[in-house]
Amino acid sequence: MIAAAMGVRPADLVLEDASLFNPFTASWDKGSLAIKNGLILGIGDYEGIKTRDCSGQYIVPGLIDAHVHIESSLLTPPEYARLVALHGTTTVIADPHEIANVAGRDGIDYMLAARQNAAIDIRYMLPSCVPATPADVGGAVLDAADLQQFLGRDGILGLGEMMNVPGVLAADRAVAGKLALSSIRDGHAPGLSGKLLNAYIFAGLQSDHECTTGAEAEEKLKKGMYLYIREGSAEQNIESLISLVTPATVSRCCFATDDCHADLLMEDGHIDRCIRKAVACGLDSGLAIRMATLSPADRFGLADRGALAPGRRADLCIIDDPEKFVVREVFVTGAAVTAASPAPQPAFPPTIRCSPSGPVTIRITGHGMARVIGLVPGQVVTESLRYDCNGDDIPDLGRDILKVVVCSRYRDLPAGVGLVHGFGFRDGAIACSISHDAHNIVAAGTSDDVIRSAIREVINAQGAMVAITGSEISVLPLDCAGLMSTLPYEEVVRRLKDLHAVTGRMGGIENPFMYLSFLALTVIPSLRITNRGVFDCTRFLDVPLFIE
Amino acid sequence: MIAAAMGVRPADLVLEDASLFNPFTASWDKGSLAIKNGLILGIGDYEGIKTRDCSGQYIVPGLIDAHVHIESSLLTPPEYARLVALHGTTTVIADPHEIANVAGRDGIDYMLAARQNAAIDIRYMLPSCVPATPADVGGAVLDAADLQQFLGRDGILGLGEMMNVPGVLAADRAVAGKLALSSIRDGHAPGLSGKLLNAYIFAGLQSDHECTTGAEAEEKLKKGMYLYIREGSAEQNIESLISLVTPATVSRCCFATDDCHADLLMEDGHIDRCIRKAVACGLDSGLAIRMATLSPADRFGLADRGALAPGRRADLCIIDDPEKFVVREVFVTGAAVTAASPAPQPAFPPTIRCSPSGPVTIRITGHGMARVIGLVPGQVVTESLRYDCNGDDIPDLGRDILKVVVCSRYRDLPAGVGLVHGFGFRDGAIACSISHDAHNIVAAGTSDDVIRSAIREVINAQGAMVAITGSEISVLPLDCAGLMSTLPYEEVVRRLKDLHAVTGRMGGIENPFMYLSFLALTVIPSLRITNRGVFDCTRFLDVPLFIE
Repeated sequence: MIAAAMGVRPADLVLEDASLFNPFTASWDKGSLAIKNGLILGIGDYEGIKTRDCSGQYIVPGLIDAHVHIESSLLTPPEYARLVALHGTTTVIADPHEIANVAGRDGIDYMLAARQNAAIDIRYMLPSCVPATPADVGGAVLDAADLQQFLGRDGILGLGEMMNVPGVLAADRAVAGKLALSSIRDGHAPGLSGKLLNAYIFAGLQSDHECTTGAEAEEKLKKGMYLYIREGSAEQNIESLISLVTPATVSRCCFATDDCHADLLMEDGHIDRCIRKAVACGLDSGLAIRMATLSPADRFGLADRGALAPGRRADLCIIDDPEKFVVREVFVTGAAVTAASPAPQPAFPPTIRCSPSGPVTIRITGHGMARVIGLVPGQVVTESLRYDCNGDDIPDLGRDILKVVVCSRYRDLPAGVGLVHGFGFRDGAIACSISHDAHNIVAAGTSDDVIRSAIREVINAQGAMVAITGSEISVLPLDCAGLMSTLPYEEVVRRLKDLHAVTGRMGGIENPFMYLSFLALTVIPSLRITNRGVFDCTRFLDVPLFIE
Repeated sequence: MIAAAMGVRPADLVLEDASLFNPFTASWDKGSLAIKNGLILGIGDYEGIKTRDCSGQYIVPGLIDAHVHIESSLLTPPEYARLVALHGTTTVIADPHEIANVAGRDGIDYMLAARQNAAIDIRYMLPSCVPATPADVGGAVLDAADLQQFLGRDGILGLGEMMNVPGVLAADRAVAGKLALSSIRDGHAPGLSGKLLNAYIFAGLQSDHECTTGAEAEEKLKKGMYLYIREGSAEQNIESLISLVTPATVSRCCFATDDCHADLLMEDGHIDRCIRKAVACGLDSGLAIRMATLSPADRFGLADRGALAPGRRADLCIIDDPEKFVVREVFVTGAAVTAASPAPQPAFPPTIRCSPSGPVTIRITGHGMARVIGLVPGQVVTESLRYDCNGDDIPDLGRDILKVVVCSRYRDLPAGVGLVHGFGFRDGAIACSISHDAHNIVAAGTSDDVIRSAIREVINAQGAMVAITGSEISVLPLDCAGLMSTLPYEEVVRRLKDLHAVTGRMGGIENPFMYLSFLALTVIPSLRITNRGVFDCTRFLDVPLFIE
């Protein structure tokens, strides 16, 4: 190989006369790029067994996502990789937080096995918060000793986003034990500032992807955190934050998608979409490309990628125009990525262990001033509303008050039942086995019967997204841990569209599943629902539906 | 400590109302810096057990030298640290290449022990080229297995400058074995370019400190090498290279001093001097400070320093004015550095093992066209000159041809004897036990008697720099491996001045010891002298003094 780099032996492939992006200088050079055995030999006058004229084309290093939960795409890792590879992504740093909440170490093992035959390089950060909170127990509890068993395994890079900010600040022993596992530690500290942020960073957290304002991001950057600027399906921060990226700061800034559904990935792209958005918001395209390549490679100590330089992986994208950044072709370790048909995927053992008939009852008895969860358009936060209600009068379509139900997927327990305002359904129900972070089954609808039918469909499919109205039933099976589908991504996207068409006919808001899947997340204000019933996030305790 | 970072407990010390340098943005912020137990708690409104008003003052992170041979200072590590700490240096990345050539693993062990009570943090790169070449055998041979024994020891950071470029390019197994030892590998490739440079980088070398032209440095930077811009006693590259440092490239650029004598360090400074020089050459002072702080910290994976940020070492300098960059006060892990008196230092076992009487004979017999080493003012390279000479007529003061002698310090062997042009001495001799890289004893002078006297002084002192003229004898003892003095640095500098005064009275050029110490270095063109005699560096072989 060294002889090949010297030009004494021929390269496998030479991409000739291209404009090559140099992230070390954030500039473009003309040259020919030589590749052998999946690695870059160098740029220069090389002979190749194959050559290809790339004049007029631009080549950039393969794109890197600094923080993503693959489960959120609804795709398994190989299908996710098959999809994002076409958009130029060649490495993702993923936190298998969702499957770990469902299936613990078995879930992480599955994700590690699934990376083996993926089209891109998937590296994992160990999920640091399973369960996310003591109030939110799902299918597993992972302590430092559990996580330690993964250290040193191929594909494990460090410790994933530490969301337990109170635990960090209280110097909780269990949290400290997790922080001590790795020297690469991702943070998660929305809104934290001042001395509390100092303490959080002091404890060892090195990055943040939760900034929503320029001031928040600037403080974190200045205090030494790596800034992952997030652009996902739900949270979109590029527009607010991108002005912080300058030649002086770009080495500390990366892109992250965090949570991105398959349809967005297929239709709008992945990190290529982030680059386009950043450029549209005024960022220099060279800085945007560096953010997507060398900066995350350096941040994670992946010195073998992130640049078109000797000895690095031949991960690269061919584009027509740096300003438009449409990816034409992608190479991963020197091989062209094709829109290959999906490989068969291993099944995941059943994770839905409650009775197939669903909860025995979801009836609301009683009346009075009720706590009602209020959806906020475009937000994950909810409002804590109060309505005078009678259990027997629900649904109250006039006031848009529907029943919402959470039933444990892990064992037969009474269901938690509450009220929600804002879905706007005139008919039918939706149910889902994705429900952050415990991933119980959550459903909302216009009658007990249709809610229970939707829940039973989820259980029967071993996890699914379901919409029912009248005689119409639309199901996206999520047979892998109730989170991901083993279907090819094209089919997942088709079924997502079908689901949305059905919920549209139900008269509801757009993306109702997004809201539904966060209704049980106890860490974000204000009011939530768990399998125990209504939960007050501000006081962090279970509360009765009717105010006494 | 986390409670202290939150401000719940008081800090040990708060430096109040200073202008604080932020390397993440290369800009200044007003604020108060809180310190406890040697670490930075953060910037903010903190209470301290001690406070200090720093209004009007500028605070920067402690300075870092990315590549230095401490031995070249003539000081032992604790004395070196005591000196450079006063100039704001708080971390150096040192390659104990010189002592390793003399004493092998014992030499590295000594340097590791000597860092323990040093005023700054000294980290070592393992010397990769001992001996420097097969032609240049000194006191030790270190192979990969020898070096491996140091891995994981406190203070060991990676593999030091790989000078064996031909070995790298030939994929030599012994070289490859050394490169495999660590993921942090410093390079050394003066003048290498094009596909040969690609191959050198491909093999795993990540940095270079040998660039002398902007074009060379730009090529290396663009190919992914970290650029250590060097400013030492002999080699001064800031002026030629500094225009390459921009906001976009600064994260890949560091300062290095490589070889710096004690007198330069004491009188002109260390990395602070590099910053002043860079600013004088037009570099923005913020970029210069970032080059000296965060950039080397990141390059070496030292995430615990390089910035005034929570959780990092409280290594810092107080300066009056960023443009002038005069260091007023220095803190290392939160404690103010004082001009403390030196601690007693352990002795190093004898390394000069030849007979105390020196070589039996250094007479030149014969005559004819002789190969004469020609000194080049201000350069380490030599010319290969030819003069018609008679051995009995040396010295030839009219043509400035003196005798030069190399005698093995390791065993009794016949001395190598040659001729040198350019010292300009009218009288006397100089001798030295520093002689790159084998560090035999090298001497030059105006008569056999005075040369032999000078050599005997070196042997008697167990290593020294010696100048003799008439009845004057000036000696700087280098009792530590014949390379470093255990004297306090102030005394070393005094004796250096005395030596230079004597050599001045001998009528010679300035800094004759610098030239003398490189006369045996077989890797740099053109003509050299070893203990075997004259050496042709272009053909890489021993040659007779007289051309046959």
